[in-house]
Amino acid sequence: MDDASAAVRNKPPSVDRLLGLAKEDMAGVDALIRERMQSPVSVIPALAEHIIEGSGKRLRPLLTIASARVAGAEDDACLKLAAAVEFIHTATLLHDDVVDSSELRRGKVAAHLIWGAPSSVLVGDFLFARAFELMVEAGSMAALEILARASRVIAEGEVLQLTRAHDLGLTEEVYLDIIRAKTAELFAAAAEAGAVSAGAAPARRAELRKFGQDLGLAFQLVDDALDYSGSSEALGKNPGDDFREGKATLPLIHAMARSGPEERAFWTRTVDLREQGEGDFERACELMVRTGALEATLGLAADYAASAKAALAAFSGSNSWRPALEDLADFAVARRK
Amino acid sequence: MDDASAAVRNKPPSVDRLLGLAKEDMAGVDALIRERMQSPVSVIPALAEHIIEGSGKRLRPLLTIASARVAGAEDDACLKLAAAVEFIHTATLLHDDVVDSSELRRGKVAAHLIWGAPSSVLVGDFLFARAFELMVEAGSMAALEILARASRVIAEGEVLQLTRAHDLGLTEEVYLDIIRAKTAELFAAAAEAGAVSAGAAPARRAELRKFGQDLGLAFQLVDDALDYSGSSEALGKNPGDDFREGKATLPLIHAMARSGPEERAFWTRTVDLREQGEGDFERACELMVRTGALEATLGLAADYAASAKAALAAFSGSNSWRPALEDLADFAVARRK
Repeated sequence: MDDASAAVRNKPPSVDRLLGLAKEDMAGVDALIRERMQSPVSVIPALAEHIIEGSGKRLRPLLTIASARVAGAEDDACLKLAAAVEFIHTATLLHDDVVDSSELRRGKVAAHLIWGAPSSVLVGDFLFARAFELMVEAGSMAALEILARASRVIAEGEVLQLTRAHDLGLTEEVYLDIIRAKTAELFAAAAEAGAVSAGAAPARRAELRKFGQDLGLAFQLVDDALDYSGSSEALGKNPGDDFREGKATLPLIHAMARSGPEERAFWTRTVDLREQGEGDFERACELMVRTGALEATLGLAADYAASAKAALAAFSGSNSWRPALEDLADFAVARRK
Repeated sequence: MDDASAAVRNKPPSVDRLLGLAKEDMAGVDALIRERMQSPVSVIPALAEHIIEGSGKRLRPLLTIASARVAGAEDDACLKLAAAVEFIHTATLLHDDVVDSSELRRGKVAAHLIWGAPSSVLVGDFLFARAFELMVEAGSMAALEILARASRVIAEGEVLQLTRAHDLGLTEEVYLDIIRAKTAELFAAAAEAGAVSAGAAPARRAELRKFGQDLGLAFQLVDDALDYSGSSEALGKNPGDDFREGKATLPLIHAMARSGPEERAFWTRTVDLREQGEGDFERACELMVRTGALEATLGLAADYAASAKAALAAFSGSNSWRPALEDLADFAVARRK
């Protein structure tokens, strides 16, 4: 191992290498996003800018770009698809915040608290439609099929979450169904659409889809773990939101399964009946650590990240995009916000 | 004039002839709608059925079918597009009802009052995505372009309405901009998508689009007039909703323009400040008639219906779909619900 790679190995995982490779492409995606969020109806760009400008890393469009490039794309067809992916994501965030009555999003006051829920719903619709206009411009019926399907699956996942999220009897299996639909599907579709725009062979396309899906699962699992451990500034949302809302995420499912009668009574009171008082969130966090629930959740995330990286085996090592995508999988698990 | 046509002329305008011609096609559209509103997440078909099952005549998909057939379509490509058009319409209805906090829709309790606003928002998203899946199956990039654009324009119109609707200084011009976007655009796109699926020449396609747009304007103008004159059972919504919500529609714009100081004070109190008491709605309806505001609104609707019919001039009279489409324009103006 030479000094340079030793230095790389000692650094915490980051997406810097990927961001460096994708810099020019992402500047193009950014320009497209800014151009297409415009409208003569002034509330639309104002609200869209608020949500789009957040501190987000634009991981989903980055995934579309990186998938296209690792699969050999030489033209810029992937840029419009990447912008479309970000618009779909942003539309779902706007609708989610209304659905969950969230107060913070990406460290900023949620849009519906500034412009009202009706505007958030309608601007979400606008961005969703804009996404499809961009896909039509990109001219790929296969990408349209992938992203239309993903949009439908996401909505199904959101409704499933809405009807089951407060169910303390939620199984790990149903929880995984929910996050596979509401989060991992868009990562999978983002990667697959990139592959399609590069004219990738069916096997490569399926592998990149698998990479995106497993990456998305790892991301959501870590998100759910951080909700019991992160700080507000780092998270860009309030830690404890899931606890306060009584959302049955995997950490909670594990903690429940590893609880004695007294702890069970605590979870029933605080999550099921949502009778919460001072110190309850701190006790919940402590139980998450003590029962090993957080560790189990992060362990599963690490498994998915490893599976994501394994899906890239057939992509040539001579292509520098592959290690950059591997960084992304490592980052998904190592991040603390 | 023979006896049969004399009898036809004495009957009030109806869409019976059109419904008869389109019977088989619409049965196919109906089957598609039922099939594609299914989901393993049970709230989705339940809520979708509630909104889709309303007393609506499915005028928009009917327009897609009729446009395709009048333009010579011989295959069934238009059926999927027609179902997609109805899904887009239904999605916007679900979101509108949340945005407006409406209590009735098509004569039934609004879905968000039964399943909650979050489910209405998310099932709207589901139906919107399903619409794009259907368009992808239909395989026409041109139809996708038309309906993606329409979806975006509708959202812009809804936001414009949201920000300007309570503005008593709204001009007729801005009002027409709003209804052109939020209502007429989908009628225009429904007709144009039908024409495209028939492989119509650009001129025929533009004429059918124009027919749809003018028909949509006539429909919305009559809707806004009926809100000051219809009865609850006939309308399928509460008459006076626009008045109670302080919505600046064309009848109100005309009534304001034709009011003396005393009447102006009435409108300012009831619509601008929304201080309404017993008898106010009745007085509003009486002023609508006395000032000629209703007549002017219905007159403009009749002008648009005539313009819609004129747009069909190039379609052969030997094709029975043309007179059936003309019936639809007449019906738009003559209907009392």
